[in-house]
Amino acid sequence: MFQNFADTNQRHLTPARIAALRSRLDVLGIDGLIIPRADQFQGEYVPAGAERLNWLTGFSGSAGSAIVLESTAAIFIDGRYTLQVRDQIDLDLITPLQVPEASPYDWVTKHVPRGGKLGFDPWLLTIRDAERFDAACRAAGAELVALDTNPIDSIWQDRPAVQAKPVEQQPLQFAGTSSADKLRDIANGLQQRGASACVLTQTDAVAWLFNIRGHDIPHTPAVLAFAVVHRDASADLFLDPSRIDEDARDALNQANVRLVAPGLMIETLQTLGSAEAVVELDFAWAAEALRRTLTESSATVSNHESPCTLPRATKNRAELEGARAAHLRDGVPMARFLRWLDVNASSGQLDEISAARKLEALRAETGELRDLSFDTISGTGPHAAIPHYRVSETSNLPIEKDRIYLVDSGAQYVDGTTDITRTIIAGSPTPEMMDRFTRVLRGMINLSRARFPAGTTGGHLDPLARLPLWEAGLDFDHGTGHGVGSYLSVHEGPQRFSKADRTVLQPGMILSNEPGYYKAGDYGIRIENLLVVHEAAPIEGGERPMHWFETLTFSPIDRNLVEPSIMSDAELDWLNDYHSQVVRKISPRLESDEDQAWLQAACAPISRQYQ
Amino acid sequence: MFQNFADTNQRHLTPARIAALRSRLDVLGIDGLIIPRADQFQGEYVPAGAERLNWLTGFSGSAGSAIVLESTAAIFIDGRYTLQVRDQIDLDLITPLQVPEASPYDWVTKHVPRGGKLGFDPWLLTIRDAERFDAACRAAGAELVALDTNPIDSIWQDRPAVQAKPVEQQPLQFAGTSSADKLRDIANGLQQRGASACVLTQTDAVAWLFNIRGHDIPHTPAVLAFAVVHRDASADLFLDPSRIDEDARDALNQANVRLVAPGLMIETLQTLGSAEAVVELDFAWAAEALRRTLTESSATVSNHESPCTLPRATKNRAELEGARAAHLRDGVPMARFLRWLDVNASSGQLDEISAARKLEALRAETGELRDLSFDTISGTGPHAAIPHYRVSETSNLPIEKDRIYLVDSGAQYVDGTTDITRTIIAGSPTPEMMDRFTRVLRGMINLSRARFPAGTTGGHLDPLARLPLWEAGLDFDHGTGHGVGSYLSVHEGPQRFSKADRTVLQPGMILSNEPGYYKAGDYGIRIENLLVVHEAAPIEGGERPMHWFETLTFSPIDRNLVEPSIMSDAELDWLNDYHSQVVRKISPRLESDEDQAWLQAACAPISRQYQ
Repeated sequence: MFQNFADTNQRHLTPARIAALRSRLDVLGIDGLIIPRADQFQGEYVPAGAERLNWLTGFSGSAGSAIVLESTAAIFIDGRYTLQVRDQIDLDLITPLQVPEASPYDWVTKHVPRGGKLGFDPWLLTIRDAERFDAACRAAGAELVALDTNPIDSIWQDRPAVQAKPVEQQPLQFAGTSSADKLRDIANGLQQRGASACVLTQTDAVAWLFNIRGHDIPHTPAVLAFAVVHRDASADLFLDPSRIDEDARDALNQANVRLVAPGLMIETLQTLGSAEAVVELDFAWAAEALRRTLTESSATVSNHESPCTLPRATKNRAELEGARAAHLRDGVPMARFLRWLDVNASSGQLDEISAARKLEALRAETGELRDLSFDTISGTGPHAAIPHYRVSETSNLPIEKDRIYLVDSGAQYVDGTTDITRTIIAGSPTPEMMDRFTRVLRGMINLSRARFPAGTTGGHLDPLARLPLWEAGLDFDHGTGHGVGSYLSVHEGPQRFSKADRTVLQPGMILSNEPGYYKAGDYGIRIENLLVVHEAAPIEGGERPMHWFETLTFSPIDRNLVEPSIMSDAELDWLNDYHSQVVRKISPRLESDEDQAWLQAACAPISRQYQ
Repeated sequence: MFQNFADTNQRHLTPARIAALRSRLDVLGIDGLIIPRADQFQGEYVPAGAERLNWLTGFSGSAGSAIVLESTAAIFIDGRYTLQVRDQIDLDLITPLQVPEASPYDWVTKHVPRGGKLGFDPWLLTIRDAERFDAACRAAGAELVALDTNPIDSIWQDRPAVQAKPVEQQPLQFAGTSSADKLRDIANGLQQRGASACVLTQTDAVAWLFNIRGHDIPHTPAVLAFAVVHRDASADLFLDPSRIDEDARDALNQANVRLVAPGLMIETLQTLGSAEAVVELDFAWAAEALRRTLTESSATVSNHESPCTLPRATKNRAELEGARAAHLRDGVPMARFLRWLDVNASSGQLDEISAARKLEALRAETGELRDLSFDTISGTGPHAAIPHYRVSETSNLPIEKDRIYLVDSGAQYVDGTTDITRTIIAGSPTPEMMDRFTRVLRGMINLSRARFPAGTTGGHLDPLARLPLWEAGLDFDHGTGHGVGSYLSVHEGPQRFSKADRTVLQPGMILSNEPGYYKAGDYGIRIENLLVVHEAAPIEGGERPMHWFETLTFSPIDRNLVEPSIMSDAELDWLNDYHSQVVRKISPRLESDEDQAWLQAACAPISRQYQ
C-alpha cells in the first residue's frame, strides 16, 4: 500500500528536543533559529530526513515554519492547519500563529532582542524569504546569520538518510518533447536575456526537463537534484550516475547533459563565478545558499522565473493524450469503488480507512498504478467538513447511512496524474444537504462550461464557481482549483483558480475545478474534475480568440444529492450530457455486468418533472 | 451651455512650437523635455493654462505625455486615443506610441543619448513617475534633471491665466460629516502611524475634506489647492482667503483650518522640515517637487495612500440620500429627452450636437444643474462604436432611422453626480443589433443582481458583466465601471470594476456598471447605471456577511433592442421590475401627460410569449 494510516503524534517528545536545540544555539552563540518545513529544493513534499519541523514540534502539515528563541517559540501555519496544529504541538512551549493574519517577519521584529543573532540554514530558505527575514532582523536592530550546518541535524540522532532510489527514463511517447528540444528552447531564452546560465532548483522542473522520474519522496515522482542549463544548450545534472540506467544515461548524453556528482555542484557554480557569468535564479523558489555561493564567487545573479515553469505547465499533445488515457483508466476503479460504496455503505461495516484501502486496491488492479498522487482524503460526516482531512487509526470513523461521505483521491500513472473528489450519501440526504450539494455542483458546472477570451486569468474565472453559493449567502475558504502535472506533482504552478491569481490561462494547462461547502462539525461537500484549457473553434459571429475547457475526469456525480429544481436548463443539460459521456467512455472498460448496470443507473438522466 | 462643440485642431501650429521648444532646450543646455498632460495636482481635468501637451502637440485627450528630444519626439497615449491622436498631431514630427504596449521609460532608455540630460518640471510628475524616469535615464547613462521653470511656459505667449473663481461651502446637509470630524479621523491615523502631518494634493480630496466646492476646471467642482493636515487635527489650506465667502471662512476657522496664501506653501513645508517632521505623501499622486522641498529641508517623507481616499469613497448617509435625490431629479430630463428622441429621431432633423444640446437644456430646466459631469458623448452609427467619442462641428452626424444612437452623459447637482448611458434606435434594429444589445444588457443585469461576500473586489465581479458576450465570442476593451464622487469627480478612485482591480468593495461606494459592445465603423452599444454597495440583510440559511448593489439610475432601456428569447427568467424579471420602478419613481415627477404616457409605454413589461 502507498498510504499508511499510522498516528504520528509525538508532542510528548517536544520539551526535550526544544531544550536540546536551545543548548545547541547557546553553544553556537546565536539567539534563535528559523525552522521551515522545507528541504533545499523547496518543494511541497520533502523526504523523511528533511522533516525537521515535524521532528522538533510534532506538526505534520505540508506547510509552515517555526522560530525558536531563547525563551519563546512560535509556529506559523495557514488556515488549513489551524485545528490540526493545536492537536499536534505542545502549546505550553510553542505558540501557533496563523498566516497571513500573523506574519513571521513582524514576529521576528517584535521578539528578537536588539543586538541579537537569528540563525537560519541558507539551504532551507528561498532568496525572497531570506530577504524578508533580513529586513525583519534589521528592523529589530538584530542580525540574520546564515549557518554552515543545521543545528537540528546535530541533535537529531536517528535522522533518516536519503534513500537514493533508481531514477527512470520517462519515455518520449509520454513526455512528447525530447530533453534536447526543451534545452534548446531554454538556451534561446537565456541568449535573448543575455544570461550565461540558469540554476534549476525545483525537483519537478528537473524531472520534466530531463524526461526522468524518481521515487525519493512519497506520491510525487520528482527527482531530488539541482541542474544548471547553459546558453549553449548543454546542461549539468547533479545526480549520481549510478542511479540512472544505461538507456537513460545514453539519452541524456546525446542531449549534451553531463551527469555530475551532487558533491561537485558548488564547484560548478564557482566555475561560473570565475567566468563572471550572469546566472539566473528564480528568487521565489531558489535557496539563499545558491545565491550566496554564486555572488561570493563573482557571478552576477539575475532574478528570473524558472524557464521550465511555463513550458511544463502547457502540456504538449502527447502529455494531453496521456492525461486522457490516465483518466479513462482511473474511471474504472472509481466506478467500481462508488458501486462498492453504494452496496455496502449502509451495512455499518465500512469506515474511512477501509474505504481508502479499497479504492487504492481497485486502482492497483489496473496494473498501472505507480503511486497515489497524494494521501487519500476519506472523510465521513464532520470529517468531510475538514478540507485537508487525513484519516488515521485514531480518527477513523465508520461510514453510516444518511451521512455524507467525501473522498478526494488521485493516482500516478506513467501517462498522467489524476485528482478527483466525489461526495456521496447512502440513505437520505436532508433538503439542506441537497441544496448545498446542488449549489456546489452548479459552480463546478459553470466553470466547466465557461468560454472566455484569450488573456483571461484563473482569478477572473474563480467567481463563476462561487456564484450559486453567494446567492444563498454561502462561500468556501479555499481556491477553486490548482494546476496538475503530467505524471508529476498533483499541485503544479503557475496556473490556478483563486481570487488573487493573475496567471493567464494558456492552452494545454491542466487545472482542477473543485468548489466545496463545509459545515463545521456536521458535513462537507466537494466535487472535483480536472480540466484542460484549449483554444476554441470560432463560432458564427464570434470576433475574439476564445478558450474553453475540456473535462478529463469521467465519474458519476451522486444523483441522490442533486436538487434539479434549483438548476437552470443549461446546467441540467450539462449534467445529463456529462453522465451520458461517463457511460459511453467508462462502461466498455468495466468487466462485470453488475458494474455496467450500476453505472448505467448512476448516470441515468435527471429530468425536472420526475423529481 | 456647459459644453462647446468647437474644433480644436491646431496641428499646423506644431512645427513652429516644437522648433521654439528645441531652441529653448538648447539655451538651457538640456537634451530633451518630458511634457505630461498634468498640472501640479495630477487630476483628470486641468485648467486651460496647464494644457501644455495640447498646446505643443495638438493632442486633446485626457491622458498622455510627450517626450521631445533634439531630433526625435514621441507621444504616449492609451488605447482610447489611438485613432484620435493620429488625427490631431503632426505625424512627421511626433511618433504616437500606445501604452502599455510601449513604455515611455523604455523609450527614454533607448533614445536619450549617453551623458545626456532629460529635463522635467517636478510639479508635473508624480514621485512614482519621477522615480521611473530617473531609473530609465540611469539605464541610458543619462541624467534626469528637475527644472526650476517650465520651458513651455517661457515660449507659450498667450498662456491663459488661472481664473480664480469663488469657492463655495458644501452645506453639511449634503456633505454629511463636518470638516472637523473628518480632520479628527485623519489626525488619528497620522498619530497611529507616527507621522506628524500629511500633504494633500488631490483637488477632489481637498474639496471633500474641507466641505468646499470650486469652479476652476470644467465639469468637476474640485478646488485647486494643496493642504497640510497636522497630527493635532488642525490644517493649513493653501487658498486665497478672498475667494471664500464669510460663512465658509467661519466654518473652516471653527474646524481649526488656517487659510494660507498659496505663495506661502513652500515656507510651510520648510517649517515642517526644520522640525524634522515625518510627513506623509501619496507617491502615486503627489508631485515630485513636494518630495524634494520636504527632503531638502530635513523632513522625513513617508509614502502612504492619501488618508482621504477611503473615507471619501465610502459615502455617508447624507451623501447617499443626496445621490438618490440627484438621480431621481436627473431621471426627469432623461425621460423627456428619450421621448423627444423617440418622436423626432426619424425626422432626419436631429444630429449629434442638437441632441446633446437638447439634453443639456432639459437638465437645465430642473433649475438645479450646476454643470455637466463631463462632455456628453452623443454618437450615432459608427460614432457610437468609439467609446470616448466627442462630437465637434466637423464630426457631427445626423441621427437617422434604423441607426443606433448612443448617449453617455451626466449632471453635477449640489447633492450628487450622475452618469448614465442609454443606447436607442428609431426604426428597426437588425437581429444582430438585438442580440448584441441583449447580451450587453444581460451583463449589466448580472452585475446589478450580484450578491457577494464582504472582501470581494471589483476585479472579482468584472467578469459577470462579460459572460453573456463571452458566450458569443465577444468582449469589450474597457473596464466595466468606475467610482463616482458626491458632487465631485465623475471618475473617482479607488473602487472600480476592471479585470486587474484589487480594491475591496465597501458599503457606501458608488460605481458605474457599463458594459458595452463596439463594432468599429458600424455601431456601438453601452448601457450604464450607477450602483451603491451595501451590506446585505442576512437571508435564511446564509452564513457569510454579504453585500449587494442598490441601483441609483432610473431611466428606460430601449425595449426595441431587447431580444427576450436569449434572456433567463431571472434576467427578464429583473428588467421588468426595473422598468416598473422607473415608472413608479419618475412618472409622478413628469409634468406633462404625454411624457407620463410615453414613459408608461416605454416601461411596459416584456413577456417571452408576445415577442
